[in-house]
Amino acid sequence: MIVLRSPKGWTGPKEVDGLPVEGTFRAHQVPLAEVRTNPGHLAMLEAWMHSYRPEELFDGAGSLVEELFDLAPRSHRRMSANPHANGGVLLRDLELPDFFDYAVAVPAPGTVRAAATRVLGGFLRDVVAKNRGNFRLFGPDETASNRLGAVFETTDRAWDAERLPVDDHLAPEGRVMEVLSEHLCQGWLEGYLLTGRHGLFNCYEAFIHIVDSMFNQHAKWLKVTRDIAWRRPIASLNYLLSSHVWRQDHNGFSHQDPGFIDHVVNKKAEVVRVYFPPDANCLLSVADHCLRSKNYVNVIVAGKQPELNWLDIDDAIIHCTRGAGIFEWASNDADGMPDVVMGCCGDVPTLETLAAVELIRQRLPQLAVRVVNVVDLMRLQPEGEHPHGMSDAEFDALFTTESPVVFAYHGYPWLIHRLTYRRHGHHNLHVRGYKEEGTTTTPFDMVMLNDLDRFHLVMDVIDHVPGLASRAGHVRQEMSDRRLACRQYTRRFGEDPPDIRDWTWTP
Amino acid sequence: MIVLRSPKGWTGPKEVDGLPVEGTFRAHQVPLAEVRTNPGHLAMLEAWMHSYRPEELFDGAGSLVEELFDLAPRSHRRMSANPHANGGVLLRDLELPDFFDYAVAVPAPGTVRAAATRVLGGFLRDVVAKNRGNFRLFGPDETASNRLGAVFETTDRAWDAERLPVDDHLAPEGRVMEVLSEHLCQGWLEGYLLTGRHGLFNCYEAFIHIVDSMFNQHAKWLKVTRDIAWRRPIASLNYLLSSHVWRQDHNGFSHQDPGFIDHVVNKKAEVVRVYFPPDANCLLSVADHCLRSKNYVNVIVAGKQPELNWLDIDDAIIHCTRGAGIFEWASNDADGMPDVVMGCCGDVPTLETLAAVELIRQRLPQLAVRVVNVVDLMRLQPEGEHPHGMSDAEFDALFTTESPVVFAYHGYPWLIHRLTYRRHGHHNLHVRGYKEEGTTTTPFDMVMLNDLDRFHLVMDVIDHVPGLASRAGHVRQEMSDRRLACRQYTRRFGEDPPDIRDWTWTP
Repeated sequence: MIVLRSPKGWTGPKEVDGLPVEGTFRAHQVPLAEVRTNPGHLAMLEAWMHSYRPEELFDGAGSLVEELFDLAPRSHRRMSANPHANGGVLLRDLELPDFFDYAVAVPAPGTVRAAATRVLGGFLRDVVAKNRGNFRLFGPDETASNRLGAVFETTDRAWDAERLPVDDHLAPEGRVMEVLSEHLCQGWLEGYLLTGRHGLFNCYEAFIHIVDSMFNQHAKWLKVTRDIAWRRPIASLNYLLSSHVWRQDHNGFSHQDPGFIDHVVNKKAEVVRVYFPPDANCLLSVADHCLRSKNYVNVIVAGKQPELNWLDIDDAIIHCTRGAGIFEWASNDADGMPDVVMGCCGDVPTLETLAAVELIRQRLPQLAVRVVNVVDLMRLQPEGEHPHGMSDAEFDALFTTESPVVFAYHGYPWLIHRLTYRRHGHHNLHVRGYKEEGTTTTPFDMVMLNDLDRFHLVMDVIDHVPGLASRAGHVRQEMSDRRLACRQYTRRFGEDPPDIRDWTWTP
Repeated sequence: MIVLRSPKGWTGPKEVDGLPVEGTFRAHQVPLAEVRTNPGHLAMLEAWMHSYRPEELFDGAGSLVEELFDLAPRSHRRMSANPHANGGVLLRDLELPDFFDYAVAVPAPGTVRAAATRVLGGFLRDVVAKNRGNFRLFGPDETASNRLGAVFETTDRAWDAERLPVDDHLAPEGRVMEVLSEHLCQGWLEGYLLTGRHGLFNCYEAFIHIVDSMFNQHAKWLKVTRDIAWRRPIASLNYLLSSHVWRQDHNGFSHQDPGFIDHVVNKKAEVVRVYFPPDANCLLSVADHCLRSKNYVNVIVAGKQPELNWLDIDDAIIHCTRGAGIFEWASNDADGMPDVVMGCCGDVPTLETLAAVELIRQRLPQLAVRVVNVVDLMRLQPEGEHPHGMSDAEFDALFTTESPVVFAYHGYPWLIHRLTYRRHGHHNLHVRGYKEEGTTTTPFDMVMLNDLDRFHLVMDVIDHVPGLASRAGHVRQEMSDRRLACRQYTRRFGEDPPDIRDWTWTP
């Protein structure tokens, strides 16, 4: 390596209008700003340009002289053909284990619990084991906290410095890059991808905002390089956001922010993908897909707490592949139009929606309910806006054009409106999500604070299904009362009532 | 100051299940995770708790013993009453110069040019001069680049270290805090505000994303402390975003990102305010307002290039105070319903809209056009969603419920949809804005790349006014041809055609 240290603005004007320029901060600006109007500036510019002796560099027709032209490397020695500058040339697909092997057995929906990221951890352990030298896991000291600790069965944290006896899984050859700096994790991963390798960045959801600006530049780079013929695709930049907004029990308001999704969705549609697997098997399917993809930014949001599983692995694959679909087993509208569509996107919103559906079946059994779950957020956009976008016909068939839609979403509710405002049924879409209400409290109190809880979803159904408001007054009051009772229980015992905490789906 | 360095987890369990805890990373987690199920853990917890000798600290009823209770300071010596922890107690209003004195004379709309931030610089210079010790300007080495250089007539950049002869305006007592780290600028300003002073952070629009996460925490802090009775209000956190997305002529795509606005608007409505003054006098009025406000985050977006001025200072004050309004002098629909409403928000979109209106007057003189300019973005929201939100009646009176609205917006267009999706006329609202298309090119090419240019706005009007499409086919083609001609001109001469660059408003 040669390090050349030169004065800033070297060879440019030493002084302009009596002020020093070369070697000072002024060389960072436009050193001669008035060449069009100030003949003195124009003369200095001319002298400066002449100092490069263009008559020796170019021939009479303005072409580079042959001797210099010949200095430029040819063919594969050109910079653009050099894999150091075009890492995609070196890219080798990952050898992925079969994710079926890690699947959670789900004999019936909503009865078996699993921590989604812990299940993923087993898969990632074997991704690491099969791809040493081609895959790394990045994250701000949260690999264990995000329940991916299984990777330490096969590898360590990368560490070249002194080790103490109490240290845990540190080694120079470790495949896990851990440091409490999201900036470093992002920068490391970008460099790793740009040199032709693969990786996954796991992070607390709220703190991924720290790299908003770095994500911007990577997404812009991907957008621009898609149109550069010689640039070979690189592996996608994969984010796994866990320890998310709804499960910050002992952290609180400072750790609650689902806005990175909104930030990502502002970037070019052909570059960004956002996934909300509702359970462990769906997370396996989505992660496998993302690790195979190229030239995208994939954001996966998944919880780390033990939660109910809805789909066995076969159904999970079908559901994730279509990206959005009806949960037939939770719907009772097969014979005709639904009275209400219950949309959901995200693990916690899916749980609350299904618990609400069960309440509706018990208390308002005459209601025809359809449950639509969205895994791939971009499916909601019109097909002209995003490559994953649904046609209007497809959207109408899922959500109807007439029935009210009560939609429970993981993040800020207005994002769903932003994605769907041109859809036929949008006037009848009512979204619940995080509205920046939070504190250090129980999981169920968190959803109650933001009106995303099962009881409030039932109230929303009562409020929006035509004619139901007056007939269902008693049920509505019961739902309101149960919210208050749950709030009281949390204040008294410091945890959620057992019938909430231990709820399972009854078919 | 006393610095106490103690082992992590000091006094906690030294070892749990054979692994060291006190003084290791494990003390950062829950040291005894199984107290409910593991009697050994429970016993260790009990021993640990007993080690604090609670029987000496509390009486039989569980109250703190009097001797200890008496140690706590009383009245104004309590931490909450200490101005070091409650800077609002020290807050003194700024002595603001009369911003009328800095106004640009605007004898007629759209004829006089001024660089908005340069005009503001004069005002800020005198804010600094009148408030030494109570006001600072913060920014990443862009004070001059953002045209606020007038402040250096009265102060310097704060600098305590060695100075070289070529240095410019450095001094220990300087009121301008400049460092090429948006993180430091944000942190310094937060500290300054929290200790009871006032400030303004000026930044390139695209790079303010660097502090997204820090902004989050400050906004959350403001939201929470509003409900804490003893917390006194602090001065607002004021951002001036300049060198914005539409004027990055020699920088390009990496410097083009208006998404901080979207990020800010996700936070609690009672805390955030976003302003788009369309010209220099409006910027003066908005800045004066923001510097007087408390407990908000104010975002002001304003260009630094010489641009046309639309309003004299009296009209500017009225317009900014109402936050959104009809430009009567640019509208010709006073006698009845407009055929089209031309909405605009932001300096460049306002320019393009008015140029489009002039084209419509020339080519489609039969069309009744209303121009509505929005300064205060939050006015677009429903009144139930934001304290500045308009009632539906007010919104309908401005934008109508039936006429198509062609809305030119500074940032990502979907933000306008997100703010207005519940409005009566929303189905007929068509927004142009930045859609992540950009490069290093001319100002007019930038708006053309994103279909925000005057010609495309005329095409949008033709496309959306019922019945106009077939009648105005010739005009539409002319507009499309003029776009192509402008593009060609930029490629040939490296700048915008003079009739675009030098355009002024003809009444």
